[in-house]
Amino acid sequence: MKCMHEKFMRMALEEAGKAEALGEVPIGAVIVKDGEVIARAHNLRETSQNPVTHAEVLAIQEASRYLGSFRLESCILYVTLEPCVMCSGAIIMSRIPHVVYGAPDKKGGTVDSLMRLLDEPKFNHRALVTSGVLGDECGERLTLFFRNLRKKRKKEV
Amino acid sequence: MKCMHEKFMRMALEEAGKAEALGEVPIGAVIVKDGEVIARAHNLRETSQNPVTHAEVLAIQEASRYLGSFRLESCILYVTLEPCVMCSGAIIMSRIPHVVYGAPDKKGGTVDSLMRLLDEPKFNHRALVTSGVLGDECGERLTLFFRNLRKKRKKEV
Repeated sequence: MKCMHEKFMRMALEEAGKAEALGEVPIGAVIVKDGEVIARAHNLRETSQNPVTHAEVLAIQEASRYLGSFRLESCILYVTLEPCVMCSGAIIMSRIPHVVYGAPDKKGGTVDSLMRLLDEPKFNHRALVTSGVLGDECGERLTLFFRNLRKKRKKEV
Repeated sequence: MKCMHEKFMRMALEEAGKAEALGEVPIGAVIVKDGEVIARAHNLRETSQNPVTHAEVLAIQEASRYLGSFRLESCILYVTLEPCVMCSGAIIMSRIPHVVYGAPDKKGGTVDSLMRLLDEPKFNHRALVTSGVLGDECGERLTLFFRNLRKKRKKEV
């Protein structure tokens, strides 16, 4: 199970790399159903200037198109960073039963860090959560990205 | 101010009517900047089978395209029903400063009913909220829709 989770998180990391190549914050997501990847996406917020284009929301929409349903039953969402409030909401709306994430997001994560929206009895859907899969690698990718960004900005000033 | 809010909420209700004509739950949204409508949308979840196509998210994306920015500063979002967790998240991600809604959603609303996500100190954005604008009319629209749906389903059984 650990091995399977790492395999798909590595694909999500590849997606994060595609975001980084575009100057985007490196976050990637993959959706798997019955062991098969049915969607993969990366953060495109800056490129698209569309606030909804987080990796998770893009992957959810791609998986919905593939399955022809807004209900992503029996799917596992892999994402390199703990989902934010919008993405947690999209997970609830699409009824994804299992979310696996890499690094925690202490400032914006709403799965474990700021709140626990995927384990909230008030909602009509809850998801199983597995955290920390390739967590160090996912986290370092982001740390390095922001460190380089600060260096670049310092040079520009 | 009340008059202006009612004027735009009436447009959101017109959008709700378009959703209803498609057999969708009648929810509509309008985004206004400097007194001008820059986006209008209605719920398309069943038609699109895309879990993200709530009226608010569609309107937010349209407004972002119009402004060429994911930041919807100085915008007011009008929506006939209290936003859910995903839409509250999209409001936070797009930095909308003011949300006006019609009817409360006791089962899924996360602005006032289940939680108060738009007034949450843990997030880096908070929005002013005005509730109950044409609230009875917005609520009755939904009540009637679900009553008719139940009748229709009863006939089909």
